Amino acid sequence: MVYATADGTTGARLRVGMVGGGRNAFIGAVHRFAMRLDDQIALVAGALSADPANAAASAADLGIAPERSYDDWRAMAQAEAARDDGIEAVVIVTPNHLHAPVAAAFMEAGIDVICDKPLSATLDEARMLVDLAAARRRKLLVTLNNTGYAMVRQAREMVRAGALGRIVSIHAAYIQDWLTLPIDADGQKQAEWRTDPARAGQSAVLADIGVHAYNLAAFISGEGAESVAADLFTAVPGRRLDDNAHVLVRWSGGARGTILASQTSPGHDNDLSVRIYGERAGLEWRGTDPERLRFTPYGEETRTIVRGGPGSSDEARRVSRMPAAHPEGYIEAFANLYRDAATLIRAHRAGAPQDPSIAALVPDVRDGARGVKFVAAAVESNAAGGAWTDARWR
Amino acid sequence: MVYATADGTTGARLRVGMVGGGRNAFIGAVHRFAMRLDDQIALVAGALSADPANAAASAADLGIAPERSYDDWRAMAQAEAARDDGIEAVVIVTPNHLHAPVAAAFMEAGIDVICDKPLSATLDEARMLVDLAAARRRKLLVTLNNTGYAMVRQAREMVRAGALGRIVSIHAAYIQDWLTLPIDADGQKQAEWRTDPARAGQSAVLADIGVHAYNLAAFISGEGAESVAADLFTAVPGRRLDDNAHVLVRWSGGARGTILASQTSPGHDNDLSVRIYGERAGLEWRGTDPERLRFTPYGEETRTIVRGGPGSSDEARRVSRMPAAHPEGYIEAFANLYRDAATLIRAHRAGAPQDPSIAALVPDVRDGARGVKFVAAAVESNAAGGAWTDARWR
Amino acid sequence: MVYATADGTTGARLRVGMVGGGRNAFIGAVHRFAMRLDDQIALVAGALSADPANAAASAADLGIAPERSYDDWRAMAQAEAARDDGIEAVVIVTPNHLHAPVAAAFMEAGIDVICDKPLSATLDEARMLVDLAAARRRKLLVTLNNTGYAMVRQAREMVRAGALGRIVSIHAAYIQDWLTLPIDADGQKQAEWRTDPARAGQSAVLADIGVHAYNLAAFISGEGAESVAADLFTAVPGRRLDDNAHVLVRWSGGARGTILASQTSPGHDNDLSVRIYGERAGLEWRGTDPERLRFTPYGEETRTIVRGGPGSSDEARRVSRMPAAHPEGYIEAFANLYRDAATLIRAHRAGAPQDPSIAALVPDVRDGARGVKFVAAAVESNAAGGAWTDARWR
Amino acid sequence: MVYATADGTTGARLRVGMVGGGRNAFIGAVHRFAMRLDDQIALVAGALSADPANAAASAADLGIAPERSYDDWRAMAQAEAARDDGIEAVVIVTPNHLHAPVAAAFMEAGIDVICDKPLSATLDEARMLVDLAAARRRKLLVTLNNTGYAMVRQAREMVRAGALGRIVSIHAAYIQDWLTLPIDADGQKQAEWRTDPARAGQSAVLADIGVHAYNLAAFISGEGAESVAADLFTAVPGRRLDDNAHVLVRWSGGARGTILASQTSPGHDNDLSVRIYGERAGLEWRGTDPERLRFTPYGEETRTIVRGGPGSSDEARRVSRMPAAHPEGYIEAFANLYRDAATLIRAHRAGAPQDPSIAALVPDVRDGARGVKFVAAAVESNAAGGAWTDARWR
Repeated sequence: MVYATADGTTGARLRVGMVGGGRNAFIGAVHRFAMRLDDQIALVAGALSADPANAAASAADLGIAPERSYDDWRAMAQAEAARDDGIEAVVIVTPNHLHAPVAAAFMEAGIDVICDKPLSATLDEARMLVDLAAARRRKLLVTLNNTGYAMVRQAREMVRAGALGRIVSIHAAYIQDWLTLPIDADGQKQAEWRTDPARAGQSAVLADIGVHAYNLAAFISGEGAESVAADLFTAVPGRRLDDNAHVLVRWSGGARGTILASQTSPGHDNDLSVRIYGERAGLEWRGTDPERLRFTPYGEETRTIVRGGPGSSDEARRVSRMPAAHPEGYIEAFANLYRDAATLIRAHRAGAPQDPSIAALVPDVRDGARGVKFVAAAVESNAAGGAWTDARWR
Repeated sequence: MVYATADGTTGARLRVGMVGGGRNAFIGAVHRFAMRLDDQIALVAGALSADPANAAASAADLGIAPERSYDDWRAMAQAEAARDDGIEAVVIVTPNHLHAPVAAAFMEAGIDVICDKPLSATLDEARMLVDLAAARRRKLLVTLNNTGYAMVRQAREMVRAGALGRIVSIHAAYIQDWLTLPIDADGQKQAEWRTDPARAGQSAVLADIGVHAYNLAAFISGEGAESVAADLFTAVPGRRLDDNAHVLVRWSGGARGTILASQTSPGHDNDLSVRIYGERAGLEWRGTDPERLRFTPYGEETRTIVRGGPGSSDEARRVSRMPAAHPEGYIEAFANLYRDAATLIRAHRAGAPQDPSIAALVPDVRDGARGVKFVAAAVESNAAGGAWTDARWR
Repeated sequence: MVYATADGTTGARLRVGMVGGGRNAFIGAVHRFAMRLDDQIALVAGALSADPANAAASAADLGIAPERSYDDWRAMAQAEAARDDGIEAVVIVTPNHLHAPVAAAFMEAGIDVICDKPLSATLDEARMLVDLAAARRRKLLVTLNNTGYAMVRQAREMVRAGALGRIVSIHAAYIQDWLTLPIDADGQKQAEWRTDPARAGQSAVLADIGVHAYNLAAFISGEGAESVAADLFTAVPGRRLDDNAHVLVRWSGGARGTILASQTSPGHDNDLSVRIYGERAGLEWRGTDPERLRFTPYGEETRTIVRGGPGSSDEARRVSRMPAAHPEGYIEAFANLYRDAATLIRAHRAGAPQDPSIAALVPDVRDGARGVKFVAAAVESNAAGGAWTDARWR
Repeated sequence: MVYATADGTTGARLRVGMVGGGRNAFIGAVHRFAMRLDDQIALVAGALSADPANAAASAADLGIAPERSYDDWRAMAQAEAARDDGIEAVVIVTPNHLHAPVAAAFMEAGIDVICDKPLSATLDEARMLVDLAAARRRKLLVTLNNTGYAMVRQAREMVRAGALGRIVSIHAAYIQDWLTLPIDADGQKQAEWRTDPARAGQSAVLADIGVHAYNLAAFISGEGAESVAADLFTAVPGRRLDDNAHVLVRWSGGARGTILASQTSPGHDNDLSVRIYGERAGLEWRGTDPERLRFTPYGEETRTIVRGGPGSSDEARRVSRMPAAHPEGYIEAFANLYRDAATLIRAHRAGAPQDPSIAALVPDVRDGARGVKFVAAAVESNAAGGAWTDARWR
């Protein structure tokens, strides 16, 4: 029964602002829960909505001073950059098509960025952001949040330590049912923008959830997609973008596998899973049961590794707040990402070296770009009748 | 608590012989357990091994009279056809490449056939058998045995009754780990013939287990593969045939999906599963937990239907021997197929009409041929770089 | 992938008769399925019902010759004992109150006995049977059938080998829902006799299912109840006997625990479970998932041991017919008991020594008597306001 | 997909102080995580340790002003009561024996109390606190935190709405393994005080975890223990208090059942579970899988109700922060209790009426006292050889 009870701050709280996330938004609130848990981040500014009334009311809800609630994110970038107590980082939780322009504006203003996934709606934008972050020497971290789960990080460590041997196959899936009915056509706000090519990008299901499955597999395996062959389709008549994707993948290290994404599979709410098999063992993790890792060394009994229990790795323990079987969940995983992001950004702004063990765990602009490339390659393959298509990032 | 306790015979036992299945074989014994359970079948003849000594010893083990133990299956077909008390049906449990010639010989001799899967090693053989069975008016039933599970049959009934609405996606998989190491190269008998192109056919993993996954999906959904795009590969260096297959499928009714097969995934013994999603509900079944069906009507709580319990269908109850939660397993499912096969063959030989509700449940030569076509199409697609390939049976 | 494929007979089949088990009975059919699986037992005589018409029709169903179908079990014992080809053993599947007189009659006639549980309806009868079996040197085996599961036998082996260390606590339960409604008052036959003090004995729920839970715990742990403190009650108004039992137990080796039995718990069909904790590890098994054993060495990851897979014990493999994850169930476990019973009775009748490793695994008259004593002690404790009551057999 | 995204404050944050919870403590950090999540509570004062250096360092960790970090909780009560911006409530996270004196001191000073369980180490203290809270008109809320889980609250609503009908049996258990070895004798701090009669009270296992199981069963069922018959024992030689408890319970509404608690069961970390069966349905919930409720209406298929998914109750949705299958866990449940406690205390201090629907959900001094009485009655029964003992609170 070893677990982290240290919940104190490590000094001054990182000052952040938020773009998007006003009343009636979804993911912004999740980011705020995650920021609060460890008390290391202060939300002090925002352009929370394109609607000025909503922006102001949302800021008041959250205790943001009226003068630091902005109607426009461009104005916010300028104003905050000019303040002595201006924000050190911005959190972007807008629809996908705004990720790139907002991130660019804040980086140009000298402010680091924490951006929701996908990094951008188009591959060109992704390339631009990679280049800009390098040119301006800014941190751009992407909240591919499932990488924050303790047991996901342990899985990654086990693969790197050789517990599986050479990896042979990788299967990941993200299955939902919330778009089983045509609720986008009926005006449901979350559904509406996610299935609009103008705001979601080239693929709905891959940009919204498929990229999580891909990124999770890449994070744990340490590999990237080499090429893909995709079958994308729309189950609900009249929907403007795909809602299901079946993708064959060949990975950089020689493994092969599948990435599946569906938003029309009744009985699955947010069913993210990954299975990786090597020549010596297999590993399985599932987002609906995130505290357990199924480890299957060939020729031995199956092991269930519980977060905080026997067999928990150092990293899993580092990011545990509770003892084993006091369940941690989605917010805690998201908070792990925020705590590590705060550590990296603080060091970066102080000119101190990054802790490489932490930097490797927090998805950055390149990881985000790899996800955008995966989506783009799958869309291209599908358009080409399922032909194997290059999915390598540069 | 409703269940079938009637275990009496329905009259004279069906007389059968067996080709293959001697000492050291595997699947022959499974067939015999299944035949015995309901006491409706008598095993009275056999050509149990190509090795005469093994054939004789195996026959003695099983109480087969010495004069009805044959060294050669051709001789057996002739001799049994000539006896007044000759066998009414032959059970074929040889390696794949012998299925077609043995089945043909017995059909030519006027004897019905119960053949293990796959129907044949090649597509030409499958076509020949379909034609021959029609020409000779013989029953040729294929022990795609997972169709015998009570809850698989219930799933099929539910789909036909419209519980899922239009089917959108279908995913089936058969995952094993027994070929993780190169045991075929080390002379393990079961592994050796299954990975030998001369005896297994064009694909090892699809012929051995992938065809089970495909057939199960087809049986429940009532659909067939329209086209496939396949990635086949060999995980173990030096193995002569594939041991992993990732196949994208477009189904006859418009659904899309995947068929996965692996024999190198540590931690999975015989992990057969199928998930089918429609516009109104989903259904999931898993061979390692065969007594339960997960039914997920959209917008309602998930239901677990237990064999023999509330919600069990008429067919599920018809083929139940035990009350709910006294688990039935693999042998019982196999025995369901044998009981129904005996009913069909008896009626056929008596010139009586087939019960269509039973005939629809027992895979026949056409179902077997469809499985062979699926394998052939996947092999062809893989050879063509994953191109979508026609998988329709005629 | 090691498993037993040898399904041949070991010689002549054991000739048995059956008392009870005619049309409309339940457990008789289960015994017959179990007897058939390995083809080592021939059912050749029966007094299948107290109703002559039912007896004759049931015998015909089962292929029993008319002259060996009896209206009366006393007559059967005499007649079979007088035949050269008379039965070697009788199987008793009547209501509880007939177990003792039938068993006694056949033992007096020189015929061995295989009796369903509980051994008898009263403790006096149990004592009589123990004494009679010893005096007449007859085998009296009791089908406490859960002891036949491969993983139950493995659990027993692991305890004996010290894998758990000193045992600290033992919890077993058998939970059903089929008596949730007053179906006994409505004339359901199985419910009616089981809740009738004249035919079931002093307790309904303990005699019907509680004894299974107790016996399973005793079989695996190698211990017996030292004393019990019981709370028995009747959930359904008007029912003549208890339908729920909560029993505290102190075991012979110093462990403590609980035995629970209920027939009015909605959602549980035949939910038998046992959990045993020692100072070094724990073990859990559940009858609805009988192929897996959860093994929890202290300070290590939890292991799942699958029948036929890695970690399977020698005994588990000896009684496996299928490879891992081709599920075996209730009939197979029952058949294991029958196969071992046939081996013991054959040896006994041949004057050959009993194989002690098998004799230890098949519950005999003393094991049956221990179960009856457990029930009697719980009833006595309950009547005494829950006082701790001696539960030792002699 | 309905869920609460409103995460804004409802006004000024409630000012609280903490007694206990310094560096190296466990449960204090959990309280702080829970307080932060909704940003409605400010921790502004503390007597975090009896060790002045630890107290000061811990306060600094947490951003508490040095002048509001106290070496002594008596001094803290006086000083905070005298400040205009003094704390409105104190959170008590000390070992059990200090709960009562600290709570009394703060209530005397006019400060409301949020106290960890158990309410007190002795029954006399519990009585004193009930009387004092009434006399001083102070809120004393007890963090029996499992009542904060969304699905626990839904279970309670379902019972109250009659979904189960008359309740027949109730089983709850809390099973751990962390005291399997004599770590208390080896000086592990958490183990040491919990097994010390001077600091833990009359029973270690019941005061530490058994009271959680009892309270959970009482909260969901709406009943209280009428009488108990207990078997308490110590598995580890030399331990000063019990580490296992098996308790039979007769409940106020006529149901019967068991409460089990163990800290020496290998393989269980914090395995809290409750099963309740009524004449119409059953309900099961498990703390290691807290997002799901198993609902078993008699004669229908088993339902799995997922938090946030179909069938979620109004209360479950009110306390959900995430959509279905983005798992919430222990911290979120604890935070639900804190959010509701803050609402109640704010209203109380403002002289406004309590929202009865919320007041009914947050355990208060009487609920705490009922738990202490349960422990005392079980200890008394055990001492009296397991006799049924009155467990009613007054």
